[in-house]
Amino acid sequence: MTSTVDAQTATTAGLDLGPARALSCRECGHQTPLAAEFACPECFGPLEVAYDFGAVTRESIEAGPRSIWRYRGLLPVPSDVQDHPNTDPGLTRLVKADRLAAALGVKSLWVKDDTGNPTHSFKDRVVAVALAAARQLGFTVLACPSTGNLANAVAAAAARAGWESVVLIPSSLEKAKILTSAVYDGALIAVDGNYDDVNRLATELAAEHEDWAFVNVNVRPYYAEGSKTLGYEVAEQLGWRLPDQVVVPIASGSQLTKVDKAFRELGELGLVEATPYRVFGAQATGCSPVSAAYKSGHDVVQPVKPDTIARSLAIGAPADGPYVLDAVRRTGGAIEDVTDAEVVEGIRLLARTEGIFAETAGGVTVATAKKLIEAGKIDPDAETVLLITGDGLKTLDAVQDHIGPRATIKPSAAAVNEVLGF
Amino acid sequence: MTSTVDAQTATTAGLDLGPARALSCRECGHQTPLAAEFACPECFGPLEVAYDFGAVTRESIEAGPRSIWRYRGLLPVPSDVQDHPNTDPGLTRLVKADRLAAALGVKSLWVKDDTGNPTHSFKDRVVAVALAAARQLGFTVLACPSTGNLANAVAAAAARAGWESVVLIPSSLEKAKILTSAVYDGALIAVDGNYDDVNRLATELAAEHEDWAFVNVNVRPYYAEGSKTLGYEVAEQLGWRLPDQVVVPIASGSQLTKVDKAFRELGELGLVEATPYRVFGAQATGCSPVSAAYKSGHDVVQPVKPDTIARSLAIGAPADGPYVLDAVRRTGGAIEDVTDAEVVEGIRLLARTEGIFAETAGGVTVATAKKLIEAGKIDPDAETVLLITGDGLKTLDAVQDHIGPRATIKPSAAAVNEVLGF
Repeated sequence: MTSTVDAQTATTAGLDLGPARALSCRECGHQTPLAAEFACPECFGPLEVAYDFGAVTRESIEAGPRSIWRYRGLLPVPSDVQDHPNTDPGLTRLVKADRLAAALGVKSLWVKDDTGNPTHSFKDRVVAVALAAARQLGFTVLACPSTGNLANAVAAAAARAGWESVVLIPSSLEKAKILTSAVYDGALIAVDGNYDDVNRLATELAAEHEDWAFVNVNVRPYYAEGSKTLGYEVAEQLGWRLPDQVVVPIASGSQLTKVDKAFRELGELGLVEATPYRVFGAQATGCSPVSAAYKSGHDVVQPVKPDTIARSLAIGAPADGPYVLDAVRRTGGAIEDVTDAEVVEGIRLLARTEGIFAETAGGVTVATAKKLIEAGKIDPDAETVLLITGDGLKTLDAVQDHIGPRATIKPSAAAVNEVLGF
Repeated sequence: MTSTVDAQTATTAGLDLGPARALSCRECGHQTPLAAEFACPECFGPLEVAYDFGAVTRESIEAGPRSIWRYRGLLPVPSDVQDHPNTDPGLTRLVKADRLAAALGVKSLWVKDDTGNPTHSFKDRVVAVALAAARQLGFTVLACPSTGNLANAVAAAAARAGWESVVLIPSSLEKAKILTSAVYDGALIAVDGNYDDVNRLATELAAEHEDWAFVNVNVRPYYAEGSKTLGYEVAEQLGWRLPDQVVVPIASGSQLTKVDKAFRELGELGLVEATPYRVFGAQATGCSPVSAAYKSGHDVVQPVKPDTIARSLAIGAPADGPYVLDAVRRTGGAIEDVTDAEVVEGIRLLARTEGIFAETAGGVTVATAKKLIEAGKIDPDAETVLLITGDGLKTLDAVQDHIGPRATIKPSAAAVNEVLGF
């Protein structure tokens, strides 16, 4: 398995977190019992979930619910997870993108369209797993600092579960983004400060309130595992095989490393043939610390101050940067970044070829794929999957100066015909 | 079957529209060959699709694609429909809504959440069927007049299929709504006029351009059948049985009549036991002509001038009004209407209890269900399904003056604790 389990740490205090057996340090390998911890007590490295997977078969998965819970045997959640109220995200469309493939000059292309999730981003996946684990760990409040998709997902999941939520946002956030979290009626608190201030405040509050699960702070190891389901679904939807190439946007970098982890687990468990695959990372140039490290051949990521319209990817000090570099280099992929103008063109290209309206992060993915294809880094004859992780309805501001009606006319058929050249 | 087929009209000119055999007048029963017609040549009554269903079983449906195409044997589409590019909507979540049930004082409640469709409304269903039929009927351009959801769905479906689209909107539409259709890069044309002007223009253009399929005009009989899939899915997701009660929003009224038709077909085909069910209709008081007719005991619907925040339901002269009255009365249901304030409260109630953010039409459905329960018209001990047909992200203006952060604070844990009473 990806992470092995020491017998000593495998027994934990009556927790049912399914196949999860311990937390394991990604730096020093030290194992510690399953708990609401995120830093190694030995070296302060990041902890991740270690498993002892039981019998999981294609058939057992296919017989499961039409949501990420069909993969519950591979996640840190109890086996009866689907009996507790949650948003039950996942099993979003994998779209064969022939028109986009033709536009990009590649043979076989798929778009994983995560805009179909309950609050229309992949964050529903990680939050659902965080909620399920938090319930087992004894928490009663779901919380996060966020500027967008995560706030929506946490507020909605808590509402569905009947939990209190505490969602911290910068007070400068646009009104539309405030409304999409406020509607769920949890404790939405606007903080006079930037996202870093809000983040620091979350860490402070997590230490103070032992019944508050900050999904991306004190229950982060469980939360992060939710991204594995993107990888599982792609493989299942391709007919139980791995794609040759996958392009993943990078914010903290967690998603990319978990998709890689999912592909490895599926191969190790014999659920797919362990064929080689290459993982590609996508960033916006205005916040491209991982891309910069990749291009310079560095193992360490230098933090930057973000300045890009792709706000859901604007994490200047990405926690999983080094692990992203490792996964990309190990699989023979690459990392590239694109300008804000290219991001807008990426959104428009996906919309006009496939009818899918992605948020700015999706524009980053499409535009980066285009750049990597043109540079010969993505093989045009091999199969590629693009992860589209959020919805264009949430980032209308990014496209508003670029698109509009073809014409404004008087109400007459002659006027329409004239516009269209008849 | 719901509509039987005369042998004389069953043979049509090499069209493959699956089990569809003819168009049949809902007023006089006259049958006419499958074609792009919408009015009876004998009496000008509305035409609907008549079928000769083959062998359709639960197993054949369950083995089909994870989209509305699993019901292709019950729709006017070719048997290879899923091999042609389309948005492939449907199979959206049916959510067991225990917290909403408790708030409304009923025993068993489900929410059919159609916000998970590709452009986040049920319109993807009807447009997908219209596109599939239009392809068979020889059209090459997909078109519509619309103020919102339909425009999004047509522009996206045409983009995905590689078809031209012509989408006509009133030029006064809010910028956000223009953007969500413009992004797909079809011919979006803003018309200086109101929705009635735009609609009249569509009918004129449909007569003039024989390769333009106006989904809700010249291919309307096929388009409307797409709403049956809401009914099929509810029954399949309940484990192949009909609910006791269903609450459906009324715009043109077509959706309500098609859900009723779907339930009858499933019973007649033996796919479910033909248990009794009651259909309830929901309108906004500011546009409630069908509710008014129901309450007065009339069979005829008097047109009104709409004035409500529920714009996607604001059809003052609903074409299917009389058929709605018939279905509701025949099944023992009722029709009710709610004020704009109740609509907003309906949106908020659904969001805070189930984490589902509906558009104004969803608020109408929830608020109407509440009113019908309080009036004793919906049986609180019988099972009820609410159809939530569109997404709150598209009608933020309806809630913007009602919700917001609980507080705005300085970035300190003490300030958060004070707000939350610690």
